[in-house]
Amino acid sequence: MARVLTPRAEDFPRWYQDIITKAQLADNGPVRGTMVIRPVGYAIWEHMQADMDNRIKEAGAQNAYFPLFIPESYLRREAEHVEGFSPELAVVTHAGGKQLAEPLVVRPTSETVIGEFMAKWVDSYRDLPLLLNQWANIVRWELRPRTFLRTTEFLWQEGHTAHATEDDARRYAREIHKHVYEEFMVNMLAIPVVPGRKTKGERFAGATNTMTVEAMMGDTKALQMGTSHELGQNFAKAFDITYSSSAGSVEHAWTTSWGTSTRMMGGLIMVHGDDNGLRLPPRIAPIQVQVMVVKAGEGVTEAAARLCAELKAVGVRVKLDDRADIPFGRRAVDAELQGIPVRVEVGPRDLAAGNAVVARRIDGTKSPIALDDVAVDVVSALKADQQRMYDDALAFREANTVDVKTLGDAIEAAQTGWARVPWSAVGTDGEAEANGKAVTVRCLFRADGSMPDTDDEPNLIAILARSY
Amino acid sequence: MARVLTPRAEDFPRWYQDIITKAQLADNGPVRGTMVIRPVGYAIWEHMQADMDNRIKEAGAQNAYFPLFIPESYLRREAEHVEGFSPELAVVTHAGGKQLAEPLVVRPTSETVIGEFMAKWVDSYRDLPLLLNQWANIVRWELRPRTFLRTTEFLWQEGHTAHATEDDARRYAREIHKHVYEEFMVNMLAIPVVPGRKTKGERFAGATNTMTVEAMMGDTKALQMGTSHELGQNFAKAFDITYSSSAGSVEHAWTTSWGTSTRMMGGLIMVHGDDNGLRLPPRIAPIQVQVMVVKAGEGVTEAAARLCAELKAVGVRVKLDDRADIPFGRRAVDAELQGIPVRVEVGPRDLAAGNAVVARRIDGTKSPIALDDVAVDVVSALKADQQRMYDDALAFREANTVDVKTLGDAIEAAQTGWARVPWSAVGTDGEAEANGKAVTVRCLFRADGSMPDTDDEPNLIAILARSY
Repeated sequence: MARVLTPRAEDFPRWYQDIITKAQLADNGPVRGTMVIRPVGYAIWEHMQADMDNRIKEAGAQNAYFPLFIPESYLRREAEHVEGFSPELAVVTHAGGKQLAEPLVVRPTSETVIGEFMAKWVDSYRDLPLLLNQWANIVRWELRPRTFLRTTEFLWQEGHTAHATEDDARRYAREIHKHVYEEFMVNMLAIPVVPGRKTKGERFAGATNTMTVEAMMGDTKALQMGTSHELGQNFAKAFDITYSSSAGSVEHAWTTSWGTSTRMMGGLIMVHGDDNGLRLPPRIAPIQVQVMVVKAGEGVTEAAARLCAELKAVGVRVKLDDRADIPFGRRAVDAELQGIPVRVEVGPRDLAAGNAVVARRIDGTKSPIALDDVAVDVVSALKADQQRMYDDALAFREANTVDVKTLGDAIEAAQTGWARVPWSAVGTDGEAEANGKAVTVRCLFRADGSMPDTDDEPNLIAILARSY
Repeated sequence: MARVLTPRAEDFPRWYQDIITKAQLADNGPVRGTMVIRPVGYAIWEHMQADMDNRIKEAGAQNAYFPLFIPESYLRREAEHVEGFSPELAVVTHAGGKQLAEPLVVRPTSETVIGEFMAKWVDSYRDLPLLLNQWANIVRWELRPRTFLRTTEFLWQEGHTAHATEDDARRYAREIHKHVYEEFMVNMLAIPVVPGRKTKGERFAGATNTMTVEAMMGDTKALQMGTSHELGQNFAKAFDITYSSSAGSVEHAWTTSWGTSTRMMGGLIMVHGDDNGLRLPPRIAPIQVQVMVVKAGEGVTEAAARLCAELKAVGVRVKLDDRADIPFGRRAVDAELQGIPVRVEVGPRDLAAGNAVVARRIDGTKSPIALDDVAVDVVSALKADQQRMYDDALAFREANTVDVKTLGDAIEAAQTGWARVPWSAVGTDGEAEANGKAVTVRCLFRADGSMPDTDDEPNLIAILARSY
């Protein structure tokens, strides 16, 4: 079989780009740094969206849509905020055939415009909490683009909430972080993530607390898969989001924001992909099973169609591939590239023996299974492989994480994996030193894995790593 | 009860804007002509999207995502195309802190960039048909904006397909037009639409055939609710979309495109709204039933919660309103404004009699119903009201449509409704005369209502009307 991809061990970044191209996940757009998400890739994104959207709604937030264009003056409201974004902005100066009086920024986040409308919509404590979410495209000019990971335009969801009390804001941000982000990534993407608190240096501009979920990629680097911010009253003060309390006083609200993006697609590829292409966790796979006619023969297409119907009847997302005029090997390679979890191969020879072959993407095993048992076998394979992908990713992460005691050892360990080190051995000065060596503090957490309330708690543990 | 909205008969445009504001469907964005779609409005759009998306996928098209920014040079490829759009474009000239070498257009449609990629992806006849759809935001600078109907930024879906033969392209465009657009509008939005062919003068630039679905609004004007285009080989020639046929020759593909947008939200309001607010057809209503605690009392909240659970169990989308601290009247007015099809009102007095009150938004009727019968009664009310809303809209349209024989009579009838007139009595010259009087030919169809193959067929019927 011809080599389709650059082997992962030979050149990880090229392997990554090869998968994206060969599995037809995305193409580069005509403007540098933009991407075309092709149907194979977009279907994965849609499945991610659908599951996250359910979780967001279960958490009580409502979707809304805010405009793409933001008057430049809005971004000046919160100085700290615009500081962070200005080199990344795309600016519309002409429209309707004329030069505009005020330039318009293409949203690098909708935070400012949402703040403006929250101020308008919130009046009394009865209007709180106000829990909003938006699915939208975002533009941040990117000088070193990499498909899905850093693109000039990307798709994301951004949640923005306003609360009457600090406690309520904190509780809600943590609920989202745990039940929407962490559980989605663990249960649906089969990606073990480390939830933790960002250091002050890594915190979102204007936030009092930034929480992250960090995952280890196949090259042992870290990827930030999503973040949730407590913004204290900083943002409410900048945008004048006030409410009258039940006691009649006027108070500033406490706000949060939280986001994940098409960057998760990059994480999915880099955690689960192998030298044959993408491997999709069954729960997120748009097509869980491809039933393939190996080659034409008496009753073959009918048997394949029957298996499809049986699988559909038990709730499996299945696709029939009866293109017997295209060589089977080529179709099997494509299915592997695209990471379809299970192939059910139906050919004249197996059929004569009353069998079909069940091939599992996770490890390439192929087993002849009696036709009557295929549906049951496949359902159990999908379940087992979902769990095994998570277990394998976790084992890989643990095998590439070392516990160390000193900053020096942590920086060294971070050259080839993750270092777990007491935060007290690093501190702000140590963080700067690590940064100078392209190593960052990914997050802080307590010894029991739980989320710290401040950076100053004793006995916090830090993860140091190279990252995307 | 205080008058909440301008009466529809007094000032239709103000009534329309009042509903949008008071029902909290949308606000004006900070940039003129843009809108903020608020949660109440966005939930309706999400339900529209979900149903249409299913239909689009059943028709075999796949979703993809193409970039927001299009190099200006792309739009020059198809002269006729750019001609139509240039005064509507918003242009990015600066990004990443610098002036760009080539200005970028914010997509007024993704047609050009999709054409470019179709050319890249289509190689052989095996790659056809290529059936793509995109849900995205679109920017067309709007000088006379009106929320949902004409906005500088709007949300839409745009389908773009390439086929090996003219027949296949035509068949597919008609399938979309009928099974996605017409049937969605009739069955889900309860809007009777007239499918028909646009005249040459109203045709989309570059199309060989534009099909439309036209609906009559509450002020008797017409609204174009969606269009589907056959583009012949024009577009494939401009973008070089070629394929090698099974015989080995290189051929240009035949393409189609088709779109609907947040404009449908405007149609929904203007067809079904009344002086008390929006009326939502049950099938599209995000909340079909609001179960309301009229006022606190023994067992009231429990009874309301129990009814909610029963309704949920039979598949009804239900919301519990137990805010007994807010006056009932205010909450009922809000539910009416937002068009919630059915309210189930639970108060101490009715409860004592073993009843709840079922109030139907369609006509304001209120009936006491025994608690045990509420779920069955509500389900049948939702079903009946969906049908009745369609029937009422159709009766209104028919009552305001007259059959005439001459252009003069048609133009006159179009001042207060729709005119149905033989197309042979109008023709291209008559169309220009009507246009001079702010009346347009909305569409052409055969006497049996079916879709014509050309404008020149004998015995075609035209609808003339004022329009949005």
